Amino acid sequence: MDEKDVTYMQAALEEANKALAKDEVPIGAVLVDRSSGEIVARAHNLTRHLCDPTAHAEIALIRSRAKEVGAQRIPDHDLYVTLEPCPMCASAISYARINRVIYGAVDPKSGGLSLESGPNLYSKAALHHKPETCSGILADECGEILSNFFKNKRHSKKLAEK
Amino acid sequence: MDEKDVTYMQAALEEANKALAKDEVPIGAVLVDRSSGEIVARAHNLTRHLCDPTAHAEIALIRSRAKEVGAQRIPDHDLYVTLEPCPMCASAISYARINRVIYGAVDPKSGGLSLESGPNLYSKAALHHKPETCSGILADECGEILSNFFKNKRHSKKLAEK
Repeated sequence: MDEKDVTYMQAALEEANKALAKDEVPIGAVLVDRSSGEIVARAHNLTRHLCDPTAHAEIALIRSRAKEVGAQRIPDHDLYVTLEPCPMCASAISYARINRVIYGAVDPKSGGLSLESGPNLYSKAALHHKPETCSGILADECGEILSNFFKNKRHSKKLAEK
Repeated sequence: MDEKDVTYMQAALEEANKALAKDEVPIGAVLVDRSSGEIVARAHNLTRHLCDPTAHAEIALIRSRAKEVGAQRIPDHDLYVTLEPCPMCASAISYARINRVIYGAVDPKSGGLSLESGPNLYSKAALHHKPETCSGILADECGEILSNFFKNKRHSKKLAEK
């Protein structure tokens, strides 16, 4: 694990906390320009606020950066995200030609990449460009913010049912 | 094959032709409200024009309709698209809770649904909601507009290289 990877993932976690403050599923992401090492875009999940099931953090990053550089492909970028990308985001990351995807917590239930029995998308011919992947950076922190969020939701639901 | 399915797919083909006129990969789609039977959204592929690798016809439909109804889930809708959805769109369609996906041409290379050896997404636990699927409506017309587009692209490339 590189020290820089931790710094970038901390920035992604800050984004996840912004989602949490808005009562959105707390997932955050940042996009890093590989040549400068700078974070060029930051985003968090906003599906509820935007009434948009595609408004995941990764999709927001890709759309904003691609528009900024004026091309539908943005190679030479690395994407840091607190949770393993879902199949939708894993595909979009491939179409955007992003180099590396670094994620914190693994998502064995709904992830698009890690599970052999799952979509396991970067092992499939359907996606031409297969980004490098790396997992486990700040995995505990990235996972805890999510599990606490869902635990609180279940608790509130139980209270409301009483 | 229902007569109405053909009418809706013809509307999706009209959208594909709009993409063609803009030199975009010619794929079109429409969204149908199941209770009224009305087409409530129309879209075509615009990835190049918008500099957005996620600007597939299906994503555009989902985003616009979800915003219109003010919810991130739009059940009670059917989606007609000229080509088998890619893994990104197949996932977004599931997240939006769309009832049925009806597609024209099968995409054995990059499709997200039909190929056993491919992502075959609606057979995977990663996607909770699994829309019904139906393929083959106007498959020849939907496939031809695409194969002609790519044939012309290859021909233009060869001429440019001479």
